[in-house]
Amino acid sequence: MAKIADRYFIVDPWNIIEEDFNPSYAQVAESIFSLGNEYMGTRGFFDEGYSGQSLVGNYFNGIYARLNQTPSAYKGMVNSTEFMVNAVNWLYTRIKIDDELLDLHNSKFSDFRRVLNLRNGLLRRSFTWATKSGKILNLIFERFVSMGNVHIGAQKISITPVNFSGKISIVSGLDFSEAHRIFNKNFWDCENVITEDSYLSITGKIESTNQKIFSSCIFHGDIENQKDVFINPKAAAKEFILDLSPDKEAVLIKIASNIVYTGSSKEDHALFDLQCAKSRQDLGALDYCTLKKENTAWWDKVWNNSDIVIKGDELNQQGIRFCIFQMFQTYHGAKKGTNIGAKGLTGEAYSGNAFWDTEVYCLPFFIFNNIEAAKNLLFFRFVTLPEAKLRAAELDCEGAFYPIATISGRECCTLWQHASLQLQASTAVVYGIWFYDRLADDKNFLYDFGLPILVEVSRMLATRGSWTDNGTKYGFYGVMGPDEFQMMVNHNCYTNYMGRFTFYYTLSVLDQLKDHDEDQFHHIISRMGISADETETWRKMADLMFIPYDEETKLYEQHDGYFKLPHVDIHSIPVEDFPLYHHWTYDRIYRNDMIKQPDVLMLMLMFNTRFSEEEIQKNYEFYEPRCIHESSLSPSVHSILASQLKKHNEAYDFFRFATRMDLDNYNRNTHEGLHTTSIAAAWMNIVYGFGGMRSDVEPISFAPSIPGEWDGYSFRITYKNNVILVDVNKQTVTFRNTGSDIIPLKVYDQTIMLGKEAQEFEIPADRRG
Amino acid sequence: MAKIADRYFIVDPWNIIEEDFNPSYAQVAESIFSLGNEYMGTRGFFDEGYSGQSLVGNYFNGIYARLNQTPSAYKGMVNSTEFMVNAVNWLYTRIKIDDELLDLHNSKFSDFRRVLNLRNGLLRRSFTWATKSGKILNLIFERFVSMGNVHIGAQKISITPVNFSGKISIVSGLDFSEAHRIFNKNFWDCENVITEDSYLSITGKIESTNQKIFSSCIFHGDIENQKDVFINPKAAAKEFILDLSPDKEAVLIKIASNIVYTGSSKEDHALFDLQCAKSRQDLGALDYCTLKKENTAWWDKVWNNSDIVIKGDELNQQGIRFCIFQMFQTYHGAKKGTNIGAKGLTGEAYSGNAFWDTEVYCLPFFIFNNIEAAKNLLFFRFVTLPEAKLRAAELDCEGAFYPIATISGRECCTLWQHASLQLQASTAVVYGIWFYDRLADDKNFLYDFGLPILVEVSRMLATRGSWTDNGTKYGFYGVMGPDEFQMMVNHNCYTNYMGRFTFYYTLSVLDQLKDHDEDQFHHIISRMGISADETETWRKMADLMFIPYDEETKLYEQHDGYFKLPHVDIHSIPVEDFPLYHHWTYDRIYRNDMIKQPDVLMLMLMFNTRFSEEEIQKNYEFYEPRCIHESSLSPSVHSILASQLKKHNEAYDFFRFATRMDLDNYNRNTHEGLHTTSIAAAWMNIVYGFGGMRSDVEPISFAPSIPGEWDGYSFRITYKNNVILVDVNKQTVTFRNTGSDIIPLKVYDQTIMLGKEAQEFEIPADRRG
Repeated sequence: MAKIADRYFIVDPWNIIEEDFNPSYAQVAESIFSLGNEYMGTRGFFDEGYSGQSLVGNYFNGIYARLNQTPSAYKGMVNSTEFMVNAVNWLYTRIKIDDELLDLHNSKFSDFRRVLNLRNGLLRRSFTWATKSGKILNLIFERFVSMGNVHIGAQKISITPVNFSGKISIVSGLDFSEAHRIFNKNFWDCENVITEDSYLSITGKIESTNQKIFSSCIFHGDIENQKDVFINPKAAAKEFILDLSPDKEAVLIKIASNIVYTGSSKEDHALFDLQCAKSRQDLGALDYCTLKKENTAWWDKVWNNSDIVIKGDELNQQGIRFCIFQMFQTYHGAKKGTNIGAKGLTGEAYSGNAFWDTEVYCLPFFIFNNIEAAKNLLFFRFVTLPEAKLRAAELDCEGAFYPIATISGRECCTLWQHASLQLQASTAVVYGIWFYDRLADDKNFLYDFGLPILVEVSRMLATRGSWTDNGTKYGFYGVMGPDEFQMMVNHNCYTNYMGRFTFYYTLSVLDQLKDHDEDQFHHIISRMGISADETETWRKMADLMFIPYDEETKLYEQHDGYFKLPHVDIHSIPVEDFPLYHHWTYDRIYRNDMIKQPDVLMLMLMFNTRFSEEEIQKNYEFYEPRCIHESSLSPSVHSILASQLKKHNEAYDFFRFATRMDLDNYNRNTHEGLHTTSIAAAWMNIVYGFGGMRSDVEPISFAPSIPGEWDGYSFRITYKNNVILVDVNKQTVTFRNTGSDIIPLKVYDQTIMLGKEAQEFEIPADRRG
Repeated sequence: MAKIADRYFIVDPWNIIEEDFNPSYAQVAESIFSLGNEYMGTRGFFDEGYSGQSLVGNYFNGIYARLNQTPSAYKGMVNSTEFMVNAVNWLYTRIKIDDELLDLHNSKFSDFRRVLNLRNGLLRRSFTWATKSGKILNLIFERFVSMGNVHIGAQKISITPVNFSGKISIVSGLDFSEAHRIFNKNFWDCENVITEDSYLSITGKIESTNQKIFSSCIFHGDIENQKDVFINPKAAAKEFILDLSPDKEAVLIKIASNIVYTGSSKEDHALFDLQCAKSRQDLGALDYCTLKKENTAWWDKVWNNSDIVIKGDELNQQGIRFCIFQMFQTYHGAKKGTNIGAKGLTGEAYSGNAFWDTEVYCLPFFIFNNIEAAKNLLFFRFVTLPEAKLRAAELDCEGAFYPIATISGRECCTLWQHASLQLQASTAVVYGIWFYDRLADDKNFLYDFGLPILVEVSRMLATRGSWTDNGTKYGFYGVMGPDEFQMMVNHNCYTNYMGRFTFYYTLSVLDQLKDHDEDQFHHIISRMGISADETETWRKMADLMFIPYDEETKLYEQHDGYFKLPHVDIHSIPVEDFPLYHHWTYDRIYRNDMIKQPDVLMLMLMFNTRFSEEEIQKNYEFYEPRCIHESSLSPSVHSILASQLKKHNEAYDFFRFATRMDLDNYNRNTHEGLHTTSIAAAWMNIVYGFGGMRSDVEPISFAPSIPGEWDGYSFRITYKNNVILVDVNKQTVTFRNTGSDIIPLKVYDQTIMLGKEAQEFEIPADRRG
């Protein structure tokens, strides 16, 4: 199942460039040219409307609708689902000359060029329009979303007539009427339209969740005159007339402010009212150029601290910068209480739901690039602990059971086999807390917010598992591990391992707290009702947790009985059978030893240094040929382990499409949105894979290798508040600390102290690809 | 989880009697007083309407509607479901005096008595009505459905004024307007209302299936005058005025004819038109008394050949006769191409769907009481072979995969874990063919209709299973066996055993046919494309089928790994947790060694003589304490094996509510309809359990025991066209052959030849309970 690139955009180290618009790529381009600032996301649709294939998608993090389903007769089933809902199009524009509407699906145009500048987040589109009446105009559309003030988005339309003078009409507004694509339905009730001179505002509300968006905007520019116009009942709009003179640029600028109310409390609504009232004044104080300058400065900082350079490989150079850019667009710690949807804010697939990908794939990126954002991601799990406790109760468990797919903290996955059997969302939260705790100097977070989660997840695990063999063996029955091609299995190695890890870690944090602050310890013990019996039970469960392992072969068994499953030679499966979910009957997928994505190997990435190299090799060589990588997250995990095992060709082969999954539309579904969480895996692929970084040891260690295909590469991480630059070329690797401290690191098993002075190491021969 | 009787009806050996109507039992009584003749079924609702709780249910075998669901993204999922639909109420009646409507929910009445006579199938209800105006009338409602002419139902209303003379209005009609209860929706479009003197007809049609019912009726009686009345758009009705004189009975008789068109072909529709046209004339020739007399004769024959007498136990005497009565009402070979729904024709629960209960529980009853009906049941599976082949293809299999729940042959179960994982519907069909073949002298059926099924099911099994251990072990992965509390298991003992049985039996029938008629053999081989390679593969799969068995303990393992599951002491589960599906989260049910219904033990009933008594004992003693009997079919299987193991108290305890499941409403859901298929198990419980009959040997054998609670019992079976009476008392058992042949039998391991002369045997001491 070789994946094949469908290249459309022009390769450039700092820009994504589209030339000569091809309508069949319209929606792919919309996804690629998405802008976002964590708070809101806007697909790269044409501002002026487009009657061809298009998804005019505007999404706000944490703004969702709910649909109830016919309740199941069975207990513990999920009977309602929540999805991020398509919201206000704050870029709404229609342009007319002589009653001819500009519409690139019908209009005659030339010199089309669209550029997304990754360095500053500016999206710029220009073309020349030839009207039926023979008028020729050059148009430029610019837009960006403010990274510093996440409510703000800005649009600039510049029009230069080439061969005429006259008037042009621009209708511009705030439009809640777009349908949510998946349900082909609009979920907004609108009210309070206010129009003043060069100002509009409107409020939209979602009935099922009582959430609101207050959208407002001001206009600047070469406005001849303006008037209110009605475009539909869910929009506010004005028509502007601009006077055009040949070769003279006329400009209309719109600065929009969007404020969300997430429907949680009266106090929140009062705050929302206050923000809305204040926004009119705030908007008046903003100007396009200053905003743009501030945004550029914001991105400069990102690139200074987080850039990855790849020498001799333009494709991956562009690809990895696009990944880094998208990671920061999707999340950067702007707002507490939100998470990362599988598609970020770029489309409706996966309904804006966050998965355990957040902790396992995205968190490492943020830990080493933006630790505040990492903390916010974990804080989301603390905020939604009450929902996880309700879910545990629904599942006849004590403690907290985190959802496999969620926006609000409630389980949104209506397939019981995932929602009820996958314990990895809960243990991933524990893993995330552990990861953050190891790398952030933030014990307050650990004790205040992490510990209650650890305790509640331990409680869930202590009630979800079972004892066998006369109480000498503990483990989990009827689960689905990370490999979703095995269901209702017992003693899944990953699940049991993570269960053991959770118990031990929870116990160790309790011990730490007791040493650190006995008062707080006793307070928590008493508030949460933790008894000595309970912790003793956890210890016993951890001590006696069954980890299926064959001492002789060094193989961990994916679950009890996995080795006895019928073997399928995955290379014998015809290419046209993929994706298997569409071509194989559902249960057939589960009846053999084929796996969808790493399960045992996942552990070997997450707790890399706890496994011997021999174990990693044996298990990699056993499981890799059984894995069909039907998850887009799978290849990078394999690539990282292959690098470690010095299988450089394999490592590069698995890396091959990691950075360009969406740019080259390898899965042919980029039009639905970007593979945001697999973008995170691309970063890990370089840093943990080729860079050989290991962060589960103290200090963190590096064992860089260099792919034969590259002349060199460098990456940066922020570690203990210092930005460390790792610069690899064909022969050597150089470490630089651009911060002011002296930082201990391990390089090829040698401990170093890295201060101002660069330190160079020769790359061992067997690490040169 | 002791089940507790909720007794309402009066105990009587031949009648079900209700005195002093209690409205809270209204719907239970409707189910109990259901009449049916395989073709149609009518719940025991009040003819004259009732504004209290009531389900006016009239059902026709094979008449159903279809509902499509949102298609699943996964392959092989069932995306539409079919359900037996509530149809024409041919008993529709409204009675008025002085504008006061008779309605037992509001009217004043006394001396209520309702009797279902099991001897002749007549339902009779009488009471005295006191109107608000002070008039007193005695009313009698009689009804029956003709067993000989299954289109016909008859109703007789007799009215005797006590203290007045005057007129009474009776509106009587044919009404398609009742809603299907489960969906609260009516599925009928009506047309062609014809009204003539004392005659009505109307045709109803179901849009989704293109099926029709032509309903017509004639009226007789003391009719003063009549006129057409409109009651609703889906009905035809007349108002009759009867002249009443004190102490003089006035009568209105309605004889209805219902003819169904099952929507299958043009030819069928022509036949339907013909039947409809002819029915007017046929109806004219019918009279109530003759029909009633014919029906009594029909039932006389049933009781002569099939009665079971229990001495010293009035409750079970009434219970078992009710069971036998319901079995014949539900099915007796009236019409080819229909099956037995889980609730017969008595309610909407289980949607009228037939399950593998038909072959495994019902077929033995018919084999020994009405072999033509047994043949028809198997013929249904031949007729629906094309649908089973389509289903196999949907499931990526060759051959035929029979549905777990069906009306038309299509799979109606929308839960994939049942519809895709349960292979026992297919192997049960094979078992049924084998059972019929052993006991009927009907090789034509075997070769013409049975063999194609055997071949196609073998093909399915040959593609659904897998080889492991380098091709030395065959078996089925990802299945759900008879015990529905274990899902996605491998090498389920029952499934593998039945797979092996199917392969061997198919091969043996092919061999038989080759010996018997080489031409037909070659014809079938060539028509079905059966190659020597294919049969060789089946033989190899059968030879190497893995049957999980522990030689030392003599235990068959329910599935590979079952013995390693966490143990649950089922007696520690609180009573209020039952039924578990409502109180335990769905997946929790699957995470231990608790079983819902017999799985390994099922095999030991179905192939009893292939297991040693030691094996049966060891497995019974292992599995029985793990079984919670959440299926109503489970206790009888355990009772039969307990009898064999001379555990007489247990045997009687499991039998305790078998015959009175519905009469005493043990499961508190009799209002939804009768447990028709578990009724069949009650018959098996007596004949195979206490009677110790074994039919998987030649000749069939008996080893009767006598429960301590009984003075004696007798049962009859039809075997090789002779009715054999087995009469058991405290000390002895007597065998009589009321037929004219000399029949070989085995009694307590002794072979006898049973002719006219009765043969008596002493019951061994260890078989006296």
